[in-house]
Amino acid sequence: MPTALQLQEVVADATPLLGGGKVADYIPELAKVPSGKLGIAVCSHRGVVGAGDFEEAFSIQSISKVFALVLAMGLYDEQELWSRVGKEPSGNPFNSLVQLEFERGKPRNPFINAGALVITDMLQSRLSAPKQRMLEMVRELSGNPHIVSDKLVAASEYQHSARNAAIAYLMKSFGNFDNDVDAVLRTYFSHCAIRMSCADLARAFFFLSNKGSGLDHQNRLSEKQNRQVNALLATCGLYDGSGEFAYRVGMPGKSGVGGGIVAVVPGQMSVAVWSPELDPSGNSVAGVAMLEMLSKRLGRSIF
Amino acid sequence: MPTALQLQEVVADATPLLGGGKVADYIPELAKVPSGKLGIAVCSHRGVVGAGDFEEAFSIQSISKVFALVLAMGLYDEQELWSRVGKEPSGNPFNSLVQLEFERGKPRNPFINAGALVITDMLQSRLSAPKQRMLEMVRELSGNPHIVSDKLVAASEYQHSARNAAIAYLMKSFGNFDNDVDAVLRTYFSHCAIRMSCADLARAFFFLSNKGSGLDHQNRLSEKQNRQVNALLATCGLYDGSGEFAYRVGMPGKSGVGGGIVAVVPGQMSVAVWSPELDPSGNSVAGVAMLEMLSKRLGRSIF
Amino acid sequence: MPTALQLQEVVADATPLLGGGKVADYIPELAKVPSGKLGIAVCSHRGVVGAGDFEEAFSIQSISKVFALVLAMGLYDEQELWSRVGKEPSGNPFNSLVQLEFERGKPRNPFINAGALVITDMLQSRLSAPKQRMLEMVRELSGNPHIVSDKLVAASEYQHSARNAAIAYLMKSFGNFDNDVDAVLRTYFSHCAIRMSCADLARAFFFLSNKGSGLDHQNRLSEKQNRQVNALLATCGLYDGSGEFAYRVGMPGKSGVGGGIVAVVPGQMSVAVWSPELDPSGNSVAGVAMLEMLSKRLGRSIF
Amino acid sequence: MPTALQLQEVVADATPLLGGGKVADYIPELAKVPSGKLGIAVCSHRGVVGAGDFEEAFSIQSISKVFALVLAMGLYDEQELWSRVGKEPSGNPFNSLVQLEFERGKPRNPFINAGALVITDMLQSRLSAPKQRMLEMVRELSGNPHIVSDKLVAASEYQHSARNAAIAYLMKSFGNFDNDVDAVLRTYFSHCAIRMSCADLARAFFFLSNKGSGLDHQNRLSEKQNRQVNALLATCGLYDGSGEFAYRVGMPGKSGVGGGIVAVVPGQMSVAVWSPELDPSGNSVAGVAMLEMLSKRLGRSIF
Repeated sequence: MPTALQLQEVVADATPLLGGGKVADYIPELAKVPSGKLGIAVCSHRGVVGAGDFEEAFSIQSISKVFALVLAMGLYDEQELWSRVGKEPSGNPFNSLVQLEFERGKPRNPFINAGALVITDMLQSRLSAPKQRMLEMVRELSGNPHIVSDKLVAASEYQHSARNAAIAYLMKSFGNFDNDVDAVLRTYFSHCAIRMSCADLARAFFFLSNKGSGLDHQNRLSEKQNRQVNALLATCGLYDGSGEFAYRVGMPGKSGVGGGIVAVVPGQMSVAVWSPELDPSGNSVAGVAMLEMLSKRLGRSIF
Repeated sequence: MPTALQLQEVVADATPLLGGGKVADYIPELAKVPSGKLGIAVCSHRGVVGAGDFEEAFSIQSISKVFALVLAMGLYDEQELWSRVGKEPSGNPFNSLVQLEFERGKPRNPFINAGALVITDMLQSRLSAPKQRMLEMVRELSGNPHIVSDKLVAASEYQHSARNAAIAYLMKSFGNFDNDVDAVLRTYFSHCAIRMSCADLARAFFFLSNKGSGLDHQNRLSEKQNRQVNALLATCGLYDGSGEFAYRVGMPGKSGVGGGIVAVVPGQMSVAVWSPELDPSGNSVAGVAMLEMLSKRLGRSIF
Repeated sequence: MPTALQLQEVVADATPLLGGGKVADYIPELAKVPSGKLGIAVCSHRGVVGAGDFEEAFSIQSISKVFALVLAMGLYDEQELWSRVGKEPSGNPFNSLVQLEFERGKPRNPFINAGALVITDMLQSRLSAPKQRMLEMVRELSGNPHIVSDKLVAASEYQHSARNAAIAYLMKSFGNFDNDVDAVLRTYFSHCAIRMSCADLARAFFFLSNKGSGLDHQNRLSEKQNRQVNALLATCGLYDGSGEFAYRVGMPGKSGVGGGIVAVVPGQMSVAVWSPELDPSGNSVAGVAMLEMLSKRLGRSIF
Repeated sequence: MPTALQLQEVVADATPLLGGGKVADYIPELAKVPSGKLGIAVCSHRGVVGAGDFEEAFSIQSISKVFALVLAMGLYDEQELWSRVGKEPSGNPFNSLVQLEFERGKPRNPFINAGALVITDMLQSRLSAPKQRMLEMVRELSGNPHIVSDKLVAASEYQHSARNAAIAYLMKSFGNFDNDVDAVLRTYFSHCAIRMSCADLARAFFFLSNKGSGLDHQNRLSEKQNRQVNALLATCGLYDGSGEFAYRVGMPGKSGVGGGIVAVVPGQMSVAVWSPELDPSGNSVAGVAMLEMLSKRLGRSIF
């Protein structure tokens, strides 16, 4: 496990990268985030260490897709789940409809928008209060009962949801979407708008480095399911930058357009980084760099 | 490391899967292979163990793409190499031209046909006898000086090379192909037609589980390069079945339409399996199953 | 102008084709139509002649796209209109989203679903009661005040509108859709569900063969606009069967999945045919055949 | 038929458009053409009138695709011919491979490169000297025995033929290409490199406005075939600008990247224009404009 000093060096060495990306601006609320933030936190059995802005909460956005998948894996059996969403990298931007039409409404994987919308549709079918249930899970996993979803961000995303609505209706036209599109979109944006800090996220993802068992000693996934989620993160977690991320960092991970990235070293630790400026694939520029440094300096690539 | 007995059990348990796939028949020479073959071999510092038809040579086909990449990594610096071929999963069948046209002649990764053709073009530019150099490398890596390329198979592939020629000419039209297409195709097919057994392949790939250093103690790759190759294998090694392979097996790997698959457990061992019947993605049905059993029984997933 | 006898022969000669296509069944209300219908009507300055079921009303479906375009050409100037929708054949099925995404939300032409949805969106912006205005226009053009839109059909289409909703939301995400998607879909389906007979349609389309001036002597289009609409019908009127239709029939035309087709011989006459069984491109099998016979026997190809 | 004075006015009115396009420069020989040329010629039963540079020969390029189709229609029956090439507009740039792969090697129509390459392959199969036969035909049709193919241009195109080779090999991989790719490419480029003037072209295309019968009173096509060719020209003749051309000009036509365009008014006359600067679709800017003026001033739209 890295020391606080090592993490501070990582933050310092990533600072010159600020200014090299672009804060997500497709919704006004996200564009308001100050661009100069940098944070990193690592969680192992021995607890959490962090550096920089690691205790400041931000919008987790697509990182919530991992929580949603984990929830769904507890509600559906393997065959049901994977009949509705695939396990392959998409090779396309995160919100493309082209592939979805060719593949007749079955999204490539649960970590692109289409896949997460199907997963949310499945949660909506089995849970009476999916927004609340998600919040409960992230609070339990992180040990932070104060985590909330930002209603302004969720509302702002809903105001700009035309493309996600297009994706959902396209899946509905192929029979792969059961609930009211509007209701599912509201749940989906509520999940995306959850605010967590790097410290929260590192704690919350610890279970994926620990055979499915969280800091609260609850089993969230079986060992096999845990390996499966990590495998999906390794091949599909960073949109169409997943290969580059594996090449440079070598850890299963998931990014969000809020600038956060979580990564997992199986058997050892979970990591969360944050910096709001994004590269053209939608991944945090300084975030990827911090993970690359960590991987190189600690030899934590899984490859 | 598994025992010979464990491997024999794996072979026995995979035997009922025979008949569930289809031997590659797009070239007559490959279609002649008896479909009922099953072999597995594992190589670690302690040597090789195997079971089934693990000492019978077969056509390695696309597994040669890994050797070609490793050769090219020794001849070109990182920036030169990756300016001509990408690092992302393709999300498409191995021989599709659609993506290649949209992405203006730069193939997605070195393990689809387009990428391997560019790599072969690069070898052709820097090596005076690329076919012979490849043979020398696989002989050294495997310690078997009798490895040859099957001229009948290479000739048969050349007779049916229209699609690969189309791919090469399309890249040429975008300025990403330097040599005579015909000459490069002949080298490419010579590489594909190399015949090796599971034992040969397990030995030859040991370096990827050993920080780039082979059984002959030669350094083929730096530690960093070795991690990079393993990362690419994990995300792109099994065509559009790479995600499923990561989910089920959890090892970086590469398949060939001859029915062979190699896989790597970094720091521990290399594995080679063979069974000629393929699934619709072009990967060996029983081969994937044997690797899945091995992974489950020995806990060798990297995730 | 053909005689009633000639038209009866056309109907007789097309009768053996019944059974060779498939009635549209994507919405239950349309699937109820008896498949054995055959009608043809021709309108010139001298009036209307018809044969077969030419006085029986049916769902005009996509034929309404022509009326919608004509309405929009009266409300918007040329530049405004064609900045939002193109003039090129699509080369794709009528409801594909792929091209729409590549071309950033601008539909290929006004006669595919995406294009007609944009046109309807434009009507919605400028007309207080677009459904009623459309009915008024077709009643005036055909001289039949009893024409109505079938509320059951419109409601049934609305119940199965997921793909059209996906198309509309995708255009909205690119900024090419102004009004509430739901409201526009209701208007669109109301237009599609208008019921007219071949006699009604032949009369209503007479203006396109008469320099824009209808049987009621109202100028619907300028001469130039009229040529433009006919040109668009000739290149884009039959979805991805437009080239085949030009090759076989040689008249600008528009088909609907209700089995109707209208065609225009500029300067001479308008024709409407009806037979509910469709070919795989969504065009009436016997309808195309009747127009082909008419074209061959009367020499009415424009080519 | 227009007078020489009317054509001079057309040329004068098009002159300000010079400088608004770009001379084709993908092969060096074509880029040498002086960009300021403007010519127009019209041919009817009464002979030829012309204006501007109408007697200066230029590279006909893709206009040769019409001659090739006409030759093939005389050598193959309808079913054979259209089993290998389609009749629909492509909706894509003239040299795209995407559609060709999706449609399994059958080109959309004979006027895109893929289609013309298949047609040339068919000519190669049935003619002992296809280059010479083509020259004979255009000499007979135009009454000009001095027409030649420019060997420098043909050689220059062959030097830059990678994309056309890719297209040909892709069709070969689907079984839709019989002869040696290299030999067919040489024939194809020889056809493209034929040099004709507007006067030559207007005479040579007169047969398409005259029920298939040329100025030499030879029947090149039956009446029905003639209508079919004109229908294909109307829907597919100007690549992905065919709809716009029909909208603005309203005549079946065919363009070439040498800057020439031919157009047909069935029953009346043939027109040829020339100006080397092209729009982004590869069609002559001033050429389209001259045809639009002619159409507007003489009322010669077929719609």
